[in-house]
Amino acid sequence: MTEETKKEYFELLGFESVGADPAKLKDCADCAMWWKRWLQAAGFEVELAMPPIKDGKAAPPIVLAERKGTEGTSRMLVYGHYDVQPAKVEDGWHTPPFEPVVKNGRVYCRGANDDKGQSFAFLCGVKAALENMPEGNAPTVKVVLEGQEESGSAALMAMAPELRKRLAADAMFVCDTSAAAGLQPAIVAGLRGVSHFTLRLKGPNRDLHSGEYGGIAPNPAQAMAELVASLHTPDGSIAVEGFLDGIEKPTEEELRLANEGAADEKAYEADIGCKPCGGEKGKPIVERNSFEPTIEVNGIHSGYGGDGSKTIIPAEAIAKISMRLVAGQSPAKVFADVKRHLEAHVPDGISLTVEGAAEGAGALKLSVSSPLFRLAESLLREMDPRGAVYQWDGASIPVISVLKDVSGATPLIVGWGQAEDKIHSPDESYSFAQFEKAEEWGRLVTENMI
Amino acid sequence: MTEETKKEYFELLGFESVGADPAKLKDCADCAMWWKRWLQAAGFEVELAMPPIKDGKAAPPIVLAERKGTEGTSRMLVYGHYDVQPAKVEDGWHTPPFEPVVKNGRVYCRGANDDKGQSFAFLCGVKAALENMPEGNAPTVKVVLEGQEESGSAALMAMAPELRKRLAADAMFVCDTSAAAGLQPAIVAGLRGVSHFTLRLKGPNRDLHSGEYGGIAPNPAQAMAELVASLHTPDGSIAVEGFLDGIEKPTEEELRLANEGAADEKAYEADIGCKPCGGEKGKPIVERNSFEPTIEVNGIHSGYGGDGSKTIIPAEAIAKISMRLVAGQSPAKVFADVKRHLEAHVPDGISLTVEGAAEGAGALKLSVSSPLFRLAESLLREMDPRGAVYQWDGASIPVISVLKDVSGATPLIVGWGQAEDKIHSPDESYSFAQFEKAEEWGRLVTENMI
Repeated sequence: MTEETKKEYFELLGFESVGADPAKLKDCADCAMWWKRWLQAAGFEVELAMPPIKDGKAAPPIVLAERKGTEGTSRMLVYGHYDVQPAKVEDGWHTPPFEPVVKNGRVYCRGANDDKGQSFAFLCGVKAALENMPEGNAPTVKVVLEGQEESGSAALMAMAPELRKRLAADAMFVCDTSAAAGLQPAIVAGLRGVSHFTLRLKGPNRDLHSGEYGGIAPNPAQAMAELVASLHTPDGSIAVEGFLDGIEKPTEEELRLANEGAADEKAYEADIGCKPCGGEKGKPIVERNSFEPTIEVNGIHSGYGGDGSKTIIPAEAIAKISMRLVAGQSPAKVFADVKRHLEAHVPDGISLTVEGAAEGAGALKLSVSSPLFRLAESLLREMDPRGAVYQWDGASIPVISVLKDVSGATPLIVGWGQAEDKIHSPDESYSFAQFEKAEEWGRLVTENMI
Repeated sequence: MTEETKKEYFELLGFESVGADPAKLKDCADCAMWWKRWLQAAGFEVELAMPPIKDGKAAPPIVLAERKGTEGTSRMLVYGHYDVQPAKVEDGWHTPPFEPVVKNGRVYCRGANDDKGQSFAFLCGVKAALENMPEGNAPTVKVVLEGQEESGSAALMAMAPELRKRLAADAMFVCDTSAAAGLQPAIVAGLRGVSHFTLRLKGPNRDLHSGEYGGIAPNPAQAMAELVASLHTPDGSIAVEGFLDGIEKPTEEELRLANEGAADEKAYEADIGCKPCGGEKGKPIVERNSFEPTIEVNGIHSGYGGDGSKTIIPAEAIAKISMRLVAGQSPAKVFADVKRHLEAHVPDGISLTVEGAAEGAGALKLSVSSPLFRLAESLLREMDPRGAVYQWDGASIPVISVLKDVSGATPLIVGWGQAEDKIHSPDESYSFAQFEKAEEWGRLVTENMI
């Protein structure tokens, strides 16, 4: 990596672009402006599209860029996001989360990988390819970078239909996922969908003395526990009526390919530090992560949590809940199923509200027989003699399905993350070796898109 | 109330004497020192006993005072506590919690009732009676005020055996409970025991991406929900094996007296703002609160709880749990039962620790036929023509059983709280009318202890 690239990378990481936090809107706008200048310097025409105000809230700008190529060549669309997950030192970071720190060939910073690092590395490769191409023989490259991916891409998804013409392309590149173990290239052939909401339970009108009112007042913390527990059966499968209806089972070939690219139980145990026993008992790990939906509690908060004790019956409880969906599930339908389940199971005396429900996005499943995948396989084998494996990623990039539809492009989702990058966790990082892979991949595909 | 008494009362309320918080030790010591000066001025010999350091932690001092009376008269022991529950403006207080504010004849402040207000009012009455008594005809009055009642009275309970001689008395007065509705006098004939602990669950070694690891990693928030839910059966009774063994059922007379003093469902609903449906379904409210034990979740905390969403599988979860015990239950035995239950029910992949378990205290049950109760009934009818009702309080004052044993005194537990005082909640208050009742009660019993 050149000193210039490193300087730019670190500048980009310095923005506290937490797209989900309204207080960080200015940081997001500054980050978008940084991208505008960088892309202009690379020969792109750039616009910062301001999403319309919704419910009184402004959204981070969307970076739209285009560098026209030679008439008749292919049109590439590059998608990435410059927003990041929230990060505070108190969460357990060993260094300030928005100050890049280099240690043993890795850059530690929120966004070092997801997705500032990966999208920037890929675009560095694209830029290098374009600079070295003979006059009159370059592909058209379109770029869309948004600031709300981590919270559901609402603005870009709402604006996408109007961008149909501007985003029209043949292939769409997304560098926001992981390679297989040992940095072996991986092509993502599927992504789970996602939706999320906040569940709020109210009981007494105030925190109550647990002696004076114990046995009298219902307890929202206990109620939340019962309600959350009711979402799963003892075998770990989902207990919500209707939730599993219509799920498309993976084909034999998909299962075979998925297993080729999968890490084993021991690798997961070493990675996460506990038995990898989430999901339905008795099913293989790759199926649970790639082809099964989840309902996950991202947080529960109620009552006292400090030192010592405070013997109260808390007045309320909240839970943050997200769901990962697979092919065949409609986000609207499963959300309705879950809401109905919660309303039917809320204990006596407790009132329930569901807040901040995101529209959600369905799963993405691509055909492994597409010609673009054959090209990708060949280029990735050029980069690494082991060749590529296929993955059906348990994570979600909800906007990809939408961009696929409006652009008409086939998505090619190849990223260079590794489990040790700890995205979404404290001490997120990305190695220079990974950065260089992403950069090389960007350069190679651009050179071959003619 | 005289201006002088009001000034003293407000001084006492101003100390942030949160006994459970090590950071407030100095405030507790200042508060004890205030009491020392006040009791000395009332003719008492006073000592501040410093509890021995335990596990490297100092405890708030214990105020021990005595005013010798005429040889051959009765010996009164007055117990109270100067520590209070934690209180922060953010909890929902409308005024700063440690600055007394008067509104419509009520004093709003943490401790206005529990127990600074009640113990101070009672002792003002004792002081007034002593001042007006003919020379050579006063009872001996002993006072013990501690600074750890809200967190289990560990220091006083540990020191109590050494204080056997100093605390020896005929009757022990505790002004730390509530009157019946409409401020009708109430004699507490029973108190539930209490114990508490912190439950900590650990899963993955860090917060994980809920997509990348969903279906792979076990979720400690989900596990906590399942574990907490497992403590009760669907009918609201306690599901822990052995927990209910050996419980002494109330006698017919106790049930009759308890029902006389009980508030009805509607009054509770108006008070707490939701259906009073805690505890076991099908049992009357007074039984659930007076004669049944509880396991109450005082708080659950895990993962994300802020605005928007953060789609993680949290690394850990904690719950604060307290139990109220009834006659026939041993704190050590039920704690062992609960611990065994939790260890048996912890989901796969999750590790469990139980922290900060307090030794706990058993329930107190007094005989309603004691002669001291006859005297109390008569004095209380003098104060209020409706006479007194009996209550078996759902709350706990763990140290009373211990002080009863070492002093040899029969406890007489009469307090003047009301539900609207909101003890342990934001905006705790105590009315001047209640203060005057407590003061009058202190004066009357002192005059009649000859």
